[in-house]
Amino acid sequence: MTKKIAIIGASGYTGAELIRLIATHPGMEIAALAANSKAGQSMASVYPHLRHLGLPDLVTVDQIDFDQIDLAFCALPHKTSQEVIRDLPKTLKIVDLSADFRLRDPAEYEKWYGNAHAAAEMQGEAVYGLTEFYRTEIAAARLVAGTGCNAATGQFTIRPLIEAGVIDLDEIILDMKCAVSGAGRSLKENLLHAELSEGYNAYAVGGTHRHLGEFDQEFSKLAGRDVKVQFTPHLMPANRGILCTAYLKGEAQAIHAALQNAYADEPFIVVLPFGETPSTHHIRGSNFVHIGVTGDRIGGRAIVVSALDNLCKGSSGQAIQNANLMLGLPETEGLMMAPLFP
Amino acid sequence: MTKKIAIIGASGYTGAELIRLIATHPGMEIAALAANSKAGQSMASVYPHLRHLGLPDLVTVDQIDFDQIDLAFCALPHKTSQEVIRDLPKTLKIVDLSADFRLRDPAEYEKWYGNAHAAAEMQGEAVYGLTEFYRTEIAAARLVAGTGCNAATGQFTIRPLIEAGVIDLDEIILDMKCAVSGAGRSLKENLLHAELSEGYNAYAVGGTHRHLGEFDQEFSKLAGRDVKVQFTPHLMPANRGILCTAYLKGEAQAIHAALQNAYADEPFIVVLPFGETPSTHHIRGSNFVHIGVTGDRIGGRAIVVSALDNLCKGSSGQAIQNANLMLGLPETEGLMMAPLFP
Amino acid sequence: MTKKIAIIGASGYTGAELIRLIATHPGMEIAALAANSKAGQSMASVYPHLRHLGLPDLVTVDQIDFDQIDLAFCALPHKTSQEVIRDLPKTLKIVDLSADFRLRDPAEYEKWYGNAHAAAEMQGEAVYGLTEFYRTEIAAARLVAGTGCNAATGQFTIRPLIEAGVIDLDEIILDMKCAVSGAGRSLKENLLHAELSEGYNAYAVGGTHRHLGEFDQEFSKLAGRDVKVQFTPHLMPANRGILCTAYLKGEAQAIHAALQNAYADEPFIVVLPFGETPSTHHIRGSNFVHIGVTGDRIGGRAIVVSALDNLCKGSSGQAIQNANLMLGLPETEGLMMAPLFP
Amino acid sequence: MTKKIAIIGASGYTGAELIRLIATHPGMEIAALAANSKAGQSMASVYPHLRHLGLPDLVTVDQIDFDQIDLAFCALPHKTSQEVIRDLPKTLKIVDLSADFRLRDPAEYEKWYGNAHAAAEMQGEAVYGLTEFYRTEIAAARLVAGTGCNAATGQFTIRPLIEAGVIDLDEIILDMKCAVSGAGRSLKENLLHAELSEGYNAYAVGGTHRHLGEFDQEFSKLAGRDVKVQFTPHLMPANRGILCTAYLKGEAQAIHAALQNAYADEPFIVVLPFGETPSTHHIRGSNFVHIGVTGDRIGGRAIVVSALDNLCKGSSGQAIQNANLMLGLPETEGLMMAPLFP
Repeated sequence: MTKKIAIIGASGYTGAELIRLIATHPGMEIAALAANSKAGQSMASVYPHLRHLGLPDLVTVDQIDFDQIDLAFCALPHKTSQEVIRDLPKTLKIVDLSADFRLRDPAEYEKWYGNAHAAAEMQGEAVYGLTEFYRTEIAAARLVAGTGCNAATGQFTIRPLIEAGVIDLDEIILDMKCAVSGAGRSLKENLLHAELSEGYNAYAVGGTHRHLGEFDQEFSKLAGRDVKVQFTPHLMPANRGILCTAYLKGEAQAIHAALQNAYADEPFIVVLPFGETPSTHHIRGSNFVHIGVTGDRIGGRAIVVSALDNLCKGSSGQAIQNANLMLGLPETEGLMMAPLFP
Repeated sequence: MTKKIAIIGASGYTGAELIRLIATHPGMEIAALAANSKAGQSMASVYPHLRHLGLPDLVTVDQIDFDQIDLAFCALPHKTSQEVIRDLPKTLKIVDLSADFRLRDPAEYEKWYGNAHAAAEMQGEAVYGLTEFYRTEIAAARLVAGTGCNAATGQFTIRPLIEAGVIDLDEIILDMKCAVSGAGRSLKENLLHAELSEGYNAYAVGGTHRHLGEFDQEFSKLAGRDVKVQFTPHLMPANRGILCTAYLKGEAQAIHAALQNAYADEPFIVVLPFGETPSTHHIRGSNFVHIGVTGDRIGGRAIVVSALDNLCKGSSGQAIQNANLMLGLPETEGLMMAPLFP
Repeated sequence: MTKKIAIIGASGYTGAELIRLIATHPGMEIAALAANSKAGQSMASVYPHLRHLGLPDLVTVDQIDFDQIDLAFCALPHKTSQEVIRDLPKTLKIVDLSADFRLRDPAEYEKWYGNAHAAAEMQGEAVYGLTEFYRTEIAAARLVAGTGCNAATGQFTIRPLIEAGVIDLDEIILDMKCAVSGAGRSLKENLLHAELSEGYNAYAVGGTHRHLGEFDQEFSKLAGRDVKVQFTPHLMPANRGILCTAYLKGEAQAIHAALQNAYADEPFIVVLPFGETPSTHHIRGSNFVHIGVTGDRIGGRAIVVSALDNLCKGSSGQAIQNANLMLGLPETEGLMMAPLFP
Repeated sequence: MTKKIAIIGASGYTGAELIRLIATHPGMEIAALAANSKAGQSMASVYPHLRHLGLPDLVTVDQIDFDQIDLAFCALPHKTSQEVIRDLPKTLKIVDLSADFRLRDPAEYEKWYGNAHAAAEMQGEAVYGLTEFYRTEIAAARLVAGTGCNAATGQFTIRPLIEAGVIDLDEIILDMKCAVSGAGRSLKENLLHAELSEGYNAYAVGGTHRHLGEFDQEFSKLAGRDVKVQFTPHLMPANRGILCTAYLKGEAQAIHAALQNAYADEPFIVVLPFGETPSTHHIRGSNFVHIGVTGDRIGGRAIVVSALDNLCKGSSGQAIQNANLMLGLPETEGLMMAPLFP
């Protein structure tokens, strides 16, 4: 019997991506779609590419009968998300795609997001949703916090290297090239086609991007000591994809071996042959991660390049993967579509 | 039991798109991939986005044991295709994606393609693969000729209007905006990113595009008289999609009604509410067609705009749809994925 | 001695384009820049690509001393423009880039723009700014109304054909492909990179685009009878450029001859050899117009394709060209830069 | 009196960019254009965007009468360039845009380019064409070697910091994002629009890009010791622009001060206020360089981001700037055009 799914915040890009994925997921069906600001509208008017699906019209959160729902995805902006989730039934399974339950420490949350958490008591309950590293906890969880898309990319690259002890923990640089859908359906001048196409720039330079909170929490816990990385995102004239170029100190072959070892049995994470490099072209629209390792001409240094689709594996695909675990469905169900190329 | 599929010409875009679709098709599996010029290479090296699929390496056509194959897709360039298909087993089910078997009349073929047909005796056998209009014949066919992508777009727009007798047959203008993947993986200056992005132009202006041969054949047959349309393609800075703006003489409401009536039960063809217009954004990566009708301020004139994905519904998706019919599988199997947006 | 220029509405795209052009114009210098909503800001913060120019900070219109100004460009939105221009000194030379003074008939203005004109008495005074056809009047004018960018493209294509009497006036179809900067720096979802790149669609279908008011006024006046064209704009994933594909009834060679004859001495308008077609790639960033003529396979029909840069020749370049005439400067001064390719 | 210019290799992108710049250069005129493989063709057919210029047809190098030429630009591929220049008159002033005379040491040339130099005796004569740092030598030179576009970008970023002694010379990482025109008009699959738009990837990872030869030569000479940087280029879905994100160890404020000090009087190099970051959008089509400095959250580390147009300041604009010096013209003549935005 298919699981009944509600999506709260269905009018944003991650909401639309959830619907795209569930459209061909044999174990899930969409029972309710909420978007308070667009309640009453049809999904066909908000996202015409979904018009063939016969979806329920958008409603407000209050209008959903959660007794009929097996799992809710919450795809709201951060801060709003915590306020909504706080008031949902305490027995409802929830995958939150916002930033609100990623950080376990209320002080860290406030430091990076600038406001006191409205549901601090739930921060401890939430399981960090990086599937490949929290599989058991996620399967048992009621509330799972989807990771940041950049945070996911960086962790797929670095976690096995910390675990294997093959890199210098004080010399980690993550230079990321991020497609624009990561900014959501926001009306800002720099996201206009006229101002973004054909050019690119760094932003949040110098260690100010909020996903650093996740890196700090996860890498430090894993290493058993403080780990602080450098991370610079760049806005790309492209709609989907994150490419992370990591500059590391360590032996490239050992780094490659550690990654191969860590991901040997993972269905979605592909470690390329040594010396090959991935492209965001080759993972677009899919749940796959491609990782490539190369040694630098300077001995003892390596470059690891990783690519994933920020909306899919970096957000909604990860959320489905987690929901599969929480609902007792096969982890890869509905997620094996090949990338769209060209 | 899944059907064993061979793809001949697997190194082009339509070949890669067939693999993308079959990757999640429950009733088909890929048994052989041929590409003579790249025989011996892995698909991962030719198309890294397919590397997770564990595909067979590329071989030459001669190396395929067709006794083990239920159906072959032929995704070769025209002229090469007829020479290869001529020599394939006469009992093999074949869906050809090239232009070689679209025209039934050898003289018409030679007029548009400039060479005598190398398998003229098979031109009569081939069924024209516009699924929605040749369903019965396709289900019974051994050899099906996939349509041109522009030819498909124009016919979805115009055929029901000819049948319903609601337009002036001497005043049909099809202005098409075509994404670049329609030109294939060809190394030409005007297809380079540096020369195509951020600009656009008409080409084959004045009634010289080869897909006119299909329009002439099909529209004239349908009307029972000669019908010649005007058709101007334009090369767009985009990778997938055809948008056809048809300028017609006829009553817009009658045109809309004729289209609604024709496509009421079609799973892939969506006629929009009167006055709405489609976008290629909303069908990308899918097998759907969106059609919109608007009346002009000048009475008795209508504009019908249609959109489809040239690589999918315009080519490889259509081919899978036809193969489903030929193999006794549900027609929509493997084809219900939602479009990729954004 | 260089002429002192004020730009009112300097924070929009046409304002920025005026500054780009004046930056290397030997006969003009920028004396004042107004943008009420951003008054007090530096141009470097509003348009960082102009930061090397040492421009004056933005002020309100009230803060400009127009006694020191030789000519003002008004690059405000329509409706706002008429209210501002109404209150400017009556001796000030003005080139208005908005829609407000393009239509001479107040009723026509109200029909297309939906509001009564706030300076209807000035509508008659304004000269229509299509330089190549109103040169003498513009040179003598105090107030010149810049044309719509689509209106300019269509008129360059059609006017000489009406004058030469070589086309059927009741069968003019203009299918235009318009880059997104024509929509200005507007924060709308469909103008976001994520929603525009890689796709395209028609809009204002059926004869509802406001530039039709200009076509009606100008073509009817020229023909001495009512002329109504069909015009469908399409939004392109590109930042600059309009390509107009005109479907006409008439002899192609006569049409080509009429265009060659009309533009033989024009510095900015290039009629291509018969059978060649232009591309927006080849006029981007310049003041040039390329026009190509081809006959259709159906006798007595022709396709004329034209290309110009909507922000330059379609708007700000045209405005500079007009200002040159009004100020007694050489008409081409500051406008001979070659297009940017690739 | 204007200087007579020949361009050898006029059919590539840097050749076309030279023509674009000379088109409005008051001190230069084009006397001859050579492109052996396209000799006999008109420039209008090779580059239609230049068709208004009335350029001479393409000829072979042999057909040029160099007695009538004041200066020749050589825009040929490397290896070809050295063979052609070797045989040109020894008194002819030449700006070479290829890689052939950038490296002074024949062994270094052979190491990076894989062949023995065909004009090794001229390697010593050539002056390295990074205008801002070799101004005096260039003004006196007969043969100037244009720099690599990435090499220019990295040196504008790093040279003043080496000179000021404010960074750790063993910890320099240059992560560059490079637009596709840097690859020239080459027919390669990965440069096709269908394969490049909407995605990006690293290439030449690990210290294998040839421009490292220039970095090694210049930085080591400047520092008086061996300096080896890490440099990873990335191919961007954009036509013009290089963005260099430099990860450095040093005090950010000192780094900013060193850059401001070095470039205070430079007409083309703009150091942004501390903490601001540049974008390739804001230098496109111009000869300007924008440089921004930010401190990292980790003390003692800084990120310096630089942007220039690879075809203009990174290649043909630099070449014109050098030619101005060699011909006794004002250095900025013909180069002050503002960037094209949007």
